[in-house]
Amino acid sequence: MVLSPDPRPSLRVAVLGCGVVGTEVVRLLTTQADDLAARVGARLELVGVAVRDVDVERDPVVDRALLTADGTTLVEKADVVVEVMGGIEPARSLLLHAIEHGASVVTANKALLAQDGPTLYAAADAAGTDLYFEAAVAGAIPIVRPVRESLAGDHVRRVLGIVNGTTNYVLDRMTTEGLDLDQAVKEAQALGYAEADPTADVEGYDAAAKAAILASLAFHTRVGLDDVHREGITAVTADDVAWAQRTGHVIKLLAIAERGEDADGTSGVQVRVHPALIRADHPLAGVRGAFNAVFVEAEAAGELMFYGRGAGGVPTASAVLGDVVSVARHRVLGGRGPVESSYAALPVLPAAAARTRYQVRLEVADRPGVLAQVASALAEHDVSIEAVRQSPDGDATADPAVAHLVITTHTAPDASLRATVEAVAGLDVVRSIVSVLRVEGA
Amino acid sequence: MVLSPDPRPSLRVAVLGCGVVGTEVVRLLTTQADDLAARVGARLELVGVAVRDVDVERDPVVDRALLTADGTTLVEKADVVVEVMGGIEPARSLLLHAIEHGASVVTANKALLAQDGPTLYAAADAAGTDLYFEAAVAGAIPIVRPVRESLAGDHVRRVLGIVNGTTNYVLDRMTTEGLDLDQAVKEAQALGYAEADPTADVEGYDAAAKAAILASLAFHTRVGLDDVHREGITAVTADDVAWAQRTGHVIKLLAIAERGEDADGTSGVQVRVHPALIRADHPLAGVRGAFNAVFVEAEAAGELMFYGRGAGGVPTASAVLGDVVSVARHRVLGGRGPVESSYAALPVLPAAAARTRYQVRLEVADRPGVLAQVASALAEHDVSIEAVRQSPDGDATADPAVAHLVITTHTAPDASLRATVEAVAGLDVVRSIVSVLRVEGA
Ligand SMILES: NC(=O)c1ccc[n+]([C@@H]2O[C@H](COP(=O)([O-])OP(=O)(O)OC[C@H]3O[C@@H](n4cnc5c(N)ncnc54)[C@H](OP(=O)(O)O)[C@@H]3O)[C@@H](O)[C@H]2O)c1
Ligand SMILES: NC(=O)c1ccc[n+]([C@@H]2O[C@H](COP(=O)([O-])OP(=O)(O)OC[C@H]3O[C@@H](n4cnc5c(N)ncnc54)[C@H](OP(=O)(O)O)[C@@H]3O)[C@@H](O)[C@H]2O)c1
Repeated sequence: MVLSPDPRPSLRVAVLGCGVVGTEVVRLLTTQADDLAARVGARLELVGVAVRDVDVERDPVVDRALLTADGTTLVEKADVVVEVMGGIEPARSLLLHAIEHGASVVTANKALLAQDGPTLYAAADAAGTDLYFEAAVAGAIPIVRPVRESLAGDHVRRVLGIVNGTTNYVLDRMTTEGLDLDQAVKEAQALGYAEADPTADVEGYDAAAKAAILASLAFHTRVGLDDVHREGITAVTADDVAWAQRTGHVIKLLAIAERGEDADGTSGVQVRVHPALIRADHPLAGVRGAFNAVFVEAEAAGELMFYGRGAGGVPTASAVLGDVVSVARHRVLGGRGPVESSYAALPVLPAAAARTRYQVRLEVADRPGVLAQVASALAEHDVSIEAVRQSPDGDATADPAVAHLVITTHTAPDASLRATVEAVAGLDVVRSIVSVLRVEGA
Repeated sequence: MVLSPDPRPSLRVAVLGCGVVGTEVVRLLTTQADDLAARVGARLELVGVAVRDVDVERDPVVDRALLTADGTTLVEKADVVVEVMGGIEPARSLLLHAIEHGASVVTANKALLAQDGPTLYAAADAAGTDLYFEAAVAGAIPIVRPVRESLAGDHVRRVLGIVNGTTNYVLDRMTTEGLDLDQAVKEAQALGYAEADPTADVEGYDAAAKAAILASLAFHTRVGLDDVHREGITAVTADDVAWAQRTGHVIKLLAIAERGEDADGTSGVQVRVHPALIRADHPLAGVRGAFNAVFVEAEAAGELMFYGRGAGGVPTASAVLGDVVSVARHRVLGGRGPVESSYAALPVLPAAAARTRYQVRLEVADRPGVLAQVASALAEHDVSIEAVRQSPDGDATADPAVAHLVITTHTAPDASLRATVEAVAGLDVVRSIVSVLRVEGA
């Protein structure tokens, strides 16, 4: 039997990078070719895969003949370029080169977008081509499309995201198994959830890049990596986790972007990454293991949550392919996807402008009148107390002269809280400030 | 000061219907006009609002001069038509008329799409215009866009949705407060969550319409309302809810669409709406009150969940406006959104082809050997038992000769289960089959 040639046009796809994600992108392009053709209205022809080393052994799904170390030449012959290489260079130059050559581009590179997104957005806009990046924020979870398209008729007030699976796994194991941070990180490494050098995850760098991208999309403004206040989870102790549970909370590393006001009334956005307590019945509290979720509060839509796998080669490849289908359809049917929307041009407010509730744990002298002293120190700084709890589980080994005090405040500006904590620390009935954690999602 | 005229083009928007949703659409179009203009690249000019009765008193946000009872003439002068009228006619004819006149259309009308979607899709396709309907499936929750765009490079295996807020509220109150169905429905009515005639919700008609739309999108095929096997919640008792909790589950009304096979090996989709048990630690179990959520299992992406408000004028208007911005941007910048994708043309399998786990509750004679008899009746029909539980909480008022048996099966085809239950009911040691509920989300 002679097969007649497929009458549909075909589009040339180049993949830059063939690691964890790239291999799965190649696999889906190959195994799902017929479905993709039906959905796009054109066959997607893989024309090459750029790697550093063409000789290294790879998954058999990758046709060795397609490998090349010359990404520059490769992008020149593609209609759609998928960048899953990572890092700043050469990813950045290759994407710009692809855009200049009129290719539509799809990238999963959060580091590059958080650092230099506007250059890429502007280049794509000038060339009239698509730049899609669904996989860069929360892996497989559709969040970029919902925020930039579904919510385009609404006003986002706040975004709270669990956008790093490694730290969520670590904190979850600390919560459910009582592990300490080191043990939980080692376990995550053994399972492949954490890198040998876990810095990017545990110090919050990865989450901060995602926070910058999310904030830019949600508030139609530009937020760069340097605008994000960042604290990792390295200071979180098993004790913090246990106390969170005792007070009806769990600790999560949150990426937070919200509208707010400075002390002098300047309206803007505040973007930060830090560990925080959230109520055990908040939808984000149920996000277990290495799963991610983004919780969005919008004026009209109310509360929304998007949940799924934030990493892993296969899930991430799903998001990449969704983008590939969108940009490819535009090439077949005409049209373009959303472009950068930064018209709001909001100032980024310093972390001191953030207003949240706090949980402060103190060791104090165990004698009458101590609580009154601490409470009046807070009142002097206009920080009002929502709840106080005094060392409930008597620890036999503990110093009987020392009591443990857990104070949850009402919403207060970060700056007042800092000043208050300093004042409280200076009281002679106070032995030490054990921890100060924000309480989010109220 | 003389304002210079806005140099941007403007688009004429007509709204059909000014009830719960329509009023909020008009409000957002009015109060958010500047932001919408910035996001669309053109001002959206509201040119008219079609209603049944132009004389009735309305929210002051609606300019009386824009009201008309003549929807037909109105749609002829609009670039974008928003249909939030509901019902089949005249909504259907007005939408077709708008499409023929080249308008882009946005609708929230699940009943119409489930009944006659393909006619509308085909008309929009022929006219080369956009037909968007994000609000028709789960109110404010972005689900249409993620399923038809973000997951376009993946294969959906199963969709489990809590897509009716009224029944979720009712079941939630039965679970948390021990109310019986009637009490919970009355409470929902008093709070405005349920209509005076709650049939469409409690009998699962509303959920069935949404299931048909979701199934069509997820599986690139056509599923109509009549293809959906539908059972409401009216048979769910306080006792069912209590037993669900005792066995670590909650009862939810689920809209389910999944790939499957018939007894003779035909591959297709199975779509159904019915109350079901889900494990208490499943992400859907935490969906409380009137919230909705759609849980998607895809081959590459894995498990995803989309959570938020499935109804209410304000949240629904957010989804409608997101669609308005998308279709308006296409008019300004060129291009078109996704069209119906039904290339897979899968057969819809009967409910008997569904394979799930079951929880069967029986009243049996309280004497030795009964469990053995029941177990062998199941084994004869190839239904294997996962767990058995015998009346754990001795009820003092109960007949001491009667024991309560709760059997959870492994996955079995619906047809075998039905036959098994009949055989078990026929055993003379069995007094009655108290309930048979599916267990989903395994
Ligand atoms: N992994 C995830 O779960 C995940 C999730 C979401 C987003 N992402 C993003 O996806 C991107 C890729 O991540 P990954 O985990 O797949 O990375 P990876 O496993 O380290 O793979 C990187 C690939 O890029 C190639 N490459 C790197 N530098 C190159 C250069 N200078 N010239 C040519 N090729 C080069 C490598 O070639 P060789 O094979 O020859 O070394 C390798 O094939 C990153 O931006 C990451 O942030 C990853
Ligand atoms: N309500 C929700 O929470 C929700 C959520 C998701 C989707 N939806 C969908 O949105 C649509 C609208 O729902 P709704 O709750 O806003 O309905 P509604 O409150 O009953 O409003 C219907 C509106 O349409 C007008 N209308 C009805 N029939 C008409 C006719 N023959 N000619 C002219 N105007 C007519 C009515 O005019 P009068 O004002 O003159 O009577 C009224 O303004 C429905 O398809 C519904 O399924 C609703």
